[in-house]
Amino acid sequence: MPTYVFDENSFLDFIKKNVKGNIAVVSSDVLDVNVEEIETHLGVKKHFVVKFAISADVFKDVDLDSFDELLNYAVVFVERDKLSEERKKAIR
Amino acid sequence: MPTYVFDENSFLDFIKKNVKGNIAVVSSDVLDVNVEEIETHLGVKKHFVVKFAISADVFKDVDLDSFDELLNYAVVFVERDKLSEERKKAIR
Repeated sequence: MPTYVFDENSFLDFIKKNVKGNIAVVSSDVLDVNVEEIETHLGVKKHFVVKFAISADVFKDVDLDSFDELLNYAVVFVERDKLSEERKKAIR
Repeated sequence: MPTYVFDENSFLDFIKKNVKGNIAVVSSDVLDVNVEEIETHLGVKKHFVVKFAISADVFKDVDLDSFDELLNYAVVFVERDKLSEERKKAIR
């Protein structure tokens, strides 16, 4: 999945679908942020690489394979005027 | 902030407060996951450390300091029965 940009209403719809009947585990514990060049199918592009710590005692099993099967998202809230012009036009 | 556990309704309330008037930038591009022991004010505890890539072309400024000022969250959706017994009792 690439990086998506949602406005207020479409983000709430997205969240409703994902959380339905489930629990949301949330962390804002950012250990590290870097800018890195990453190869994508559109060529090499700059990315913010953000490292989050999520307390493992939340989960019954502290197991990487089980964790990998879960839906994992990074979410950044930002004012519209801090988006690039190109992405302002591509808000869902 | 430690790791919080929200049910469907309280998570939607949390999201509504954060997204109000803003844009949500979302990535599920997980580069790496590890289990690490991290020192907290409650002692050394195991954490899942998750590294996300967020496309930088979303933002007007590709600048670490500006990025650090934004609200950043990692969100994991999980079934209630995959939580530890202790955390099941502490769902918001």
